[in-house]
Parts: sequence; C-alpha cells; structure tokens
Amino acid sequence: MSAHRYKLTIEYDGTPFSGWQRQADRPSVQQALEQAIYGMSGETVTTQAAGRTDAGVHALGQVAHFDLGKTWDPFRIREALNYHLRPDPVAIIAAEAVGDDFEARFSARARHYEYRILNRRAPAVIERDHVWHVPMELDADAMDHAAGLILGTHDFTTFRSSECQANSPLRTLDKFSVRRELDHIVISASARSFLHHQVRSMVGSLKLVGEGKWSPSDFRAALDARDRRRCGAMAPSSGLYLTRVDY
Amino acid sequence: MSAHRYKLTIEYDGTPFSGWQRQADRPSVQQALEQAIYGMSGETVTTQAAGRTDAGVHALGQVAHFDLGKTWDPFRIREALNYHLRPDPVAIIAAEAVGDDFEARFSARARHYEYRILNRRAPAVIERDHVWHVPMELDADAMDHAAGLILGTHDFTTFRSSECQANSPLRTLDKFSVRRELDHIVISASARSFLHHQVRSMVGSLKLVGEGKWSPSDFRAALDARDRRRCGAMAPSSGLYLTRVDY
Repeated sequence: MSAHRYKLTIEYDGTPFSGWQRQADRPSVQQALEQAIYGMSGETVTTQAAGRTDAGVHALGQVAHFDLGKTWDPFRIREALNYHLRPDPVAIIAAEAVGDDFEARFSARARHYEYRILNRRAPAVIERDHVWHVPMELDADAMDHAAGLILGTHDFTTFRSSECQANSPLRTLDKFSVRRELDHIVISASARSFLHHQVRSMVGSLKLVGEGKWSPSDFRAALDARDRRRCGAMAPSSGLYLTRVDY
Repeated sequence: MSAHRYKLTIEYDGTPFSGWQRQADRPSVQQALEQAIYGMSGETVTTQAAGRTDAGVHALGQVAHFDLGKTWDPFRIREALNYHLRPDPVAIIAAEAVGDDFEARFSARARHYEYRILNRRAPAVIERDHVWHVPMELDADAMDHAAGLILGTHDFTTFRSSECQANSPLRTLDKFSVRRELDHIVISASARSFLHHQVRSMVGSLKLVGEGKWSPSDFRAALDARDRRRCGAMAPSSGLYLTRVDY
C-alpha cells in the first residue's frame, strides 16, 4: 500500500513544551501534533521535524513531515489540524503534498534561527518568555564584529553541548550577525545544520563581548580552543526562534 | 508639607487585568502599581494615568503620576517598583521627578495608539492575546484610504461607546493610518484625546472596508451619520496598545 507524504510549516510557542521531541509524561510539540493528526484522520503517525528544538525554544517556521494512508487536500489538512491543535499554542502555517523522498530532517539545505535579546533595565512583560532580558547595555557593533570572525567551516566543540550526539563537531556557519533594533538586539544564524545547543552557546559567549568582558578576538580564540570549558554561560531558550528551513 | 511628584512611563500586558482602573475584587494595573509603591515607600498613594485602558488592552508607554511625602532618586524608584511589581506583567520603563503642575491625564498633548491584526488563516499562537486574528485576507490599502477620510475634527458619536462619559463627542484625529507588514496589519491612531472605545470602534469598522463589505466612502458616511448603530462590531481589546503619550 502506498502512503501519501505531507510537509507542514509550523509555528509554536515553546514555553509550555518540553521541546519538539516526544517524551514520556511531559508535553511536547511532537505529541500535540501527532494527537491532532490522529484527531483529524484516525491514523497513528510518527512525525519527523527539521529541528528538534529544546524546551522553551520557539518556532516561526519549523518543518515536519508525516505519511497518511489516505489522500488529503492540503488545505483541509491545515484547517483540520489547526482545529484539533487547540488550545495548544501550535499553528500550522502551511501544508503541502510532497514526494516520498522528502525528509524534513535530511532534505534540509539550510536552517535559520533568530535570537532576541531585550536590552533595557526594565524587565520583559509583554515579551516575557519570548526574549532574553539583559539589563546591562550591550555593544551590538562589537557583537556583530565578533560574530563575523567565526563564519565558515570550523570545529565548533567549544559551542557544543557535552551531550551532543553528532558524529562530527565540524559545521559551516553561513550567516551569523547582530543588529540593534531600538531596545532589542537580534542575532541571526544560518547553517545547513547546527550542533546541539550551538546557537545558545554562541549567543551566551557573544553577550560577554557585548558587555566588554571579552574582545571580539577573545570570542574567536574561544572557538579555536575547541574546549567546551571556554564557552560563556549558555543563553536561555526563551529568546531562540527557529524561523525558517530551506529545501 | 510639600509633596514630591513623580512621572512614570509604564509597559504592561493587559491580558490578566480588568483594565487600568482600580476595581473591587478584580486585578487592575492601577492596584498593582499602587501596591508596589506602598511596598517601596510605605506610602498609600493614588496614581493617575494618561489613558484608562480597558480590560485586555496593552501599553508600551502608558504615563502615570503620583505624589510622595519623601524625596526619591528617580532611578531608585524605577528599580524598586520593578522589583515590587513582580510577578505582575507591569514594568516601569522610566521614572522622573516633575513639578506639581504636571498631570498625567490633563497635561497630555497627544496620545498614540497602535492596533495589531494578524491576518492569516492560521491562528495566533506566539502572539495569542496580543493581536486580533482575522483569517480572511484584508485590503490594507483600502483600509488606509478609508482611514484618511476621517482625519481632523468631527463628531465621533458613531465610534463612541454608549457608556462614554465625555461631555462632547467632538475629537480631532491627527493620525489614522493603516499599513501591512507581512501577515500583520498595523493601524496607528493619534489624537489629543479619544472617546471611550473610539479606537476599537473605528478599527472594527475599518475591518469591514478591508473585507470589501464597505467602501471607504461607506466608512466616512458612518461617521457622518453620528449614529452608534452604524458602527461595525467593535475590534477586541487584545490587539490594542497605548504606545506613547506626549506632553
């Protein structure tokens, strides 16, 4: 029996979830989505996502795929899943039929993340759980300069979780830049793939540059050391968004 | 004994509050703030705000004033109030000492509001409670054209709550414009003062223009009718922000 594969583009508020990946006894985005697919179709499926985001990390453009035994109109899939996902803070932005060679995780050519810092004395209230609040004024230009020093292909051991299961610490950073937007600092990072905790580790160390505790060349030297102990304290998950995945 | 007057610029998430104004048995921003001032100073004060926002309406730049018997360093006021306001979603962005002729409500020269619509099929999740979700595609250009037709001084009876207590229905709309930002529609409104429910009433009617149910001249004709029954269904409070007050 031939199955029909569908690709979803998904937005979610990561706050109430233990992350993308299904876990026993803790709410996950994957579980919420698979339950909604069951509610819609009566079929029990396993979904696969482009990025297995951690607890508290948000997505504006996560991508996942799954197979159904029956053919569905993609428009109906989007509408029905949005109905069945309520009240979980997960929304299907787009649904499309794809060939069975499409793999959300393995077919991805580029993943794009954004990290948002609220940089002011007053705490975050409207954006609580959706930014990292840093009260000390940060030098965004110095951060941007430092970010530019680690573009390209490197051994990212310094900026990799000790629990990372990737075979190689080599990754190619295609974009890593920092800009100020009034009292926000927005960090953009793009690569074919990232190591576990890589973006939050790089952002945590960039903050030290922004505070003047590290120079941009200290940041580059931390990378070159290939030593996890040289990484600054990791930035919290609340500021991180998976914004887009390219295929 | 002479009192010392302080001006606060305040951000809040209106979702959990019954509005700015103190009410028996329901949480209000005013009560949260006055309690924080008591926590800081031991003084029981009454605060006065530039705009008495309704339940669920947010503020990025609400302004309020209050008097203290003792002199305080404004920097300490901001820090101490932000400490005492936790965990309520209210933040003091700025505090300054002002003369005793300053009145947050009566000295205001201009009030600026923004109304945010999320205009896409998928529901709001990251922005839940912070936008009005309108699934049908709206024509922002037609809405902007209609908005321009009611600039200036008019009798705004059509766009005024039946419970509005202002003496006169005359107001002068200095700015009223609509722009699209990807899947958001942002409406800006500025005036020296507004009638009760005026912005949400105008936005609710503008939506009819965006859907093509009204022409821009229907919108102007509704104003000219000076009849509350000609107003479209009022837009929900979740999309409204008091962004700035000028003195």
